[in-house]
Amino acid sequence: MRGAWIGVDWGTSNLRAWKFSETGEVIGARACNAGISSIVEHRFSTALVETVGAWTDGSLPILLGGMIGSRQGWAEVPYLPCPAKPTDLAAHAYPIDTGIGRGWIVPGLSCFDESGVADVMRGEEVQLLGAEIENGLALMPGTHSKWVTIVQGAVMSFRTFMTGELFALLKERSLLGRLMIDGPDDYSAFDEGLDRAFADPALTSLLFGVRTEGLFGRLAPEALADYLSGLLIGAELAGMRCHRGIPLTLIGEGALAARYDRALRRAGSTHVATLAGDEAAIRGLRKIAGIVLEGK
Amino acid sequence: MRGAWIGVDWGTSNLRAWKFSETGEVIGARACNAGISSIVEHRFSTALVETVGAWTDGSLPILLGGMIGSRQGWAEVPYLPCPAKPTDLAAHAYPIDTGIGRGWIVPGLSCFDESGVADVMRGEEVQLLGAEIENGLALMPGTHSKWVTIVQGAVMSFRTFMTGELFALLKERSLLGRLMIDGPDDYSAFDEGLDRAFADPALTSLLFGVRTEGLFGRLAPEALADYLSGLLIGAELAGMRCHRGIPLTLIGEGALAARYDRALRRAGSTHVATLAGDEAAIRGLRKIAGIVLEGK
Repeated sequence: MRGAWIGVDWGTSNLRAWKFSETGEVIGARACNAGISSIVEHRFSTALVETVGAWTDGSLPILLGGMIGSRQGWAEVPYLPCPAKPTDLAAHAYPIDTGIGRGWIVPGLSCFDESGVADVMRGEEVQLLGAEIENGLALMPGTHSKWVTIVQGAVMSFRTFMTGELFALLKERSLLGRLMIDGPDDYSAFDEGLDRAFADPALTSLLFGVRTEGLFGRLAPEALADYLSGLLIGAELAGMRCHRGIPLTLIGEGALAARYDRALRRAGSTHVATLAGDEAAIRGLRKIAGIVLEGK
Repeated sequence: MRGAWIGVDWGTSNLRAWKFSETGEVIGARACNAGISSIVEHRFSTALVETVGAWTDGSLPILLGGMIGSRQGWAEVPYLPCPAKPTDLAAHAYPIDTGIGRGWIVPGLSCFDESGVADVMRGEEVQLLGAEIENGLALMPGTHSKWVTIVQGAVMSFRTFMTGELFALLKERSLLGRLMIDGPDDYSAFDEGLDRAFADPALTSLLFGVRTEGLFGRLAPEALADYLSGLLIGAELAGMRCHRGIPLTLIGEGALAARYDRALRRAGSTHVATLAGDEAAIRGLRKIAGIVLEGK
């Protein structure tokens, strides 16, 4: 690889871009809300020029990961089935003309369970590479939380939980949200939710308890969202109980990562490391660029 | 009890009323969408007069059940804690002046699990009485599905599942709904959802499969809502697995009751009888009236 290059993590809601020097150092960073859901009439090139145009005269290669490779994105890049290694992802990077230089879109990953039901990811695979896990489990909390099994550096399989989306739906749109008032984090209510979900698999019934705990004044209106969050994250951890004992890397930051960290400890999981999502993305882009852009 | 009387099932979305003869026969019936959520400025009396005013000059007693006794209703009638018998419900009927005659609101029920978390019902208790179960389980599907344990004619405990509300939320408001197209019932997709939920407690992960089954073309867009329904009803039945073998009465009608009936059979439950919700309400009102209005 010769010269500087640009790496982009282009998701549904956000666009984050970094300029890398010849030696791989980050020498520029941009973030904006021009996620693919906000792009009309396929104007991806326009949005990219607005974001990174000041960094390049069109001569720098651009590596893109995330939902930009989905059916709703710039070009649909087929999912790469697991098991997949970093070299596989690089080998299937999909070339496009960005309008300001040659581009490559990193494919997402797919895997299939025993009955043939698929799971998919787009964007997380770049962060995963950045985490450089040789053997173990990666947990990536979010709207759609991902648990990933990695063996000898290859992504073997993964499982998605709709935890974040369900939390938002139930808080904003369901009966449960009506009694809630925003307040400071209440970890005692969160822990209570965790413990109940660890002990009882009937999640859709436990959820109704968010209402009655408020109705009977056992939890303050400010604590109800924390209790709900505990139930949902607890159910997620209970679903992955079979993985207890496997070293786990938590990829994420801020309040959400702190909640998962707390939940993992409470569940007795072997939690070895935490890595911020941005840092993971930067490292992952660097790793793929090292292969894709080699000699280009 | 002397003379005719009026029975009302007044829920969140609907109001149903019946006129009963001296001998307990239904001699009039009305249904409208004047549920308590549509009543502004506490105009319950106005809505009642509009619905049953033609039946009475103010001399007939009126028995009311449902959310009308909730905090958002006409008067908040405290929940009666389980265990509760029909006579207990009648003894705690709450007298009000309806504006067109003396009224009594039937209280809802509450019960508490080992850790003190409450569950509640309002309206279902009237239908329950109507089902006349001496010993067994009652299942009442709906927005908030209820499973009720009855011993020697008393409601001992019950459990609510948010199955219907979750189905609507996920279909109308989540990522899962985007690939769905309305179509005729697809029981094969429904059964597939049931079987997966029976086998795997990680519901919030199974839900993501609704998306991928559509994405990979394994289920037609018209079948995705059925698959989702199977997952949610399956998770509900799995949560009540400990009750398998206990005779069960399904209270409900139409497509939803048919789905639960199918799911119960597939789960190997001992399903003894089905009773329509309206019929159960009529019988329940008659039973309570026989006690409350005795000699009035």
